[in-house]
Amino acid sequence: MGEHLHEHAVVPRTDEEKDKVMNRLKRIEGQVRGIQKMVDEDRYCVDILVQISAIQSALKNVGYTVTERHMKHCVTDAINKGEGEDSIEELMAVLKQFSK
Amino acid sequence: MGEHLHEHAVVPRTDEEKDKVMNRLKRIEGQVRGIQKMVDEDRYCVDILVQISAIQSALKNVGYTVTERHMKHCVTDAINKGEGEDSIEELMAVLKQFSK
Amino acid sequence: MGEHLHEHAVVPRTDEEKDKVMNRLKRIEGQVRGIQKMVDEDRYCVDILVQISAIQSALKNVGYTVTERHMKHCVTDAINKGEGEDSIEELMAVLKQFSK
Amino acid sequence: MGEHLHEHAVVPRTDEEKDKVMNRLKRIEGQVRGIQKMVDEDRYCVDILVQISAIQSALKNVGYTVTERHMKHCVTDAINKGEGEDSIEELMAVLKQFSK
Repeated sequence: MGEHLHEHAVVPRTDEEKDKVMNRLKRIEGQVRGIQKMVDEDRYCVDILVQISAIQSALKNVGYTVTERHMKHCVTDAINKGEGEDSIEELMAVLKQFSK
Repeated sequence: MGEHLHEHAVVPRTDEEKDKVMNRLKRIEGQVRGIQKMVDEDRYCVDILVQISAIQSALKNVGYTVTERHMKHCVTDAINKGEGEDSIEELMAVLKQFSK
Repeated sequence: MGEHLHEHAVVPRTDEEKDKVMNRLKRIEGQVRGIQKMVDEDRYCVDILVQISAIQSALKNVGYTVTERHMKHCVTDAINKGEGEDSIEELMAVLKQFSK
Repeated sequence: MGEHLHEHAVVPRTDEEKDKVMNRLKRIEGQVRGIQKMVDEDRYCVDILVQISAIQSALKNVGYTVTERHMKHCVTDAINKGEGEDSIEELMAVLKQFSK
């Protein structure tokens, strides 16, 4: 993935930050397993769709948290160094992919 | 979840159908775990966002498969019994939730 | 546009249905003109984004109304004639395009 | 709309920038009128949905242009003044509204 501007977060995530995101990702992992169980038990399609939509929304929230942190650290840092343009264009590209 | 019209798929999913959806959900589960690893390794925010967006898109595809099957079986069945309205309104409600 | 299954709504829209959708589309047209004015007056980007997002949401609602009507008339009609599959696949294709 | 950080774009839009966005908004206005005509002529629902989805996508592109400009001028300016946090949080709020 050498295609992006960095390999790592410019300002390392604190343990607290990591824990928070991690907990949400573990919950999402559990939700995905929950849907597998529903499919296995041949549950009603609409109930499955409701669960998929709950995961979508949980993932979106993780995405927002990561994006906000990215702007407050990596993008801000780039702007302070006079290298804002590249960083902003990189972010725009991923935002466009997101809302597809 | 007695709020929806059925507890189970009206026409049971075949093993092949289950396997197909199951494989996609297992891959998604693996992708979610992959993001956990990225967070743990303090990887670059944009790389994490790209992965989240890949999962979103994989989940959306599972959603489409479930929706199409739902229309071809449950909704079609309801319409054939003259009970299409309720089934369509139930589906519309979940589609609206989806695109939020 | 001969690519789709029909040229016209299978069951003609009533005047009341037309009026309702029409009023919403006229309001949307007015909102689009409102944004033109904001751009012309060099208004703050965030205010413009809020307005764009209001139009997106109004358009989505028109889309839901059209989709629901389509299922209750055209798709139901096709299913009753035993031609449900094509109609459902056509609808799925447009739903996928929508959420892009 | 005194709720946001500014009344006007921090760096005024050039005539070229205005023209570009304006042309796209005029095209979108035309597309909205086109849908009104389709409704009036009782055109097939799926054709109408395809048009609505084309407008959604055109509006999204205007939104991206405005967002990118906003980051390159207003947000960058705020960060340079040491007032980045508020500006980033304001932008995040509107991005969340967008993808609803």
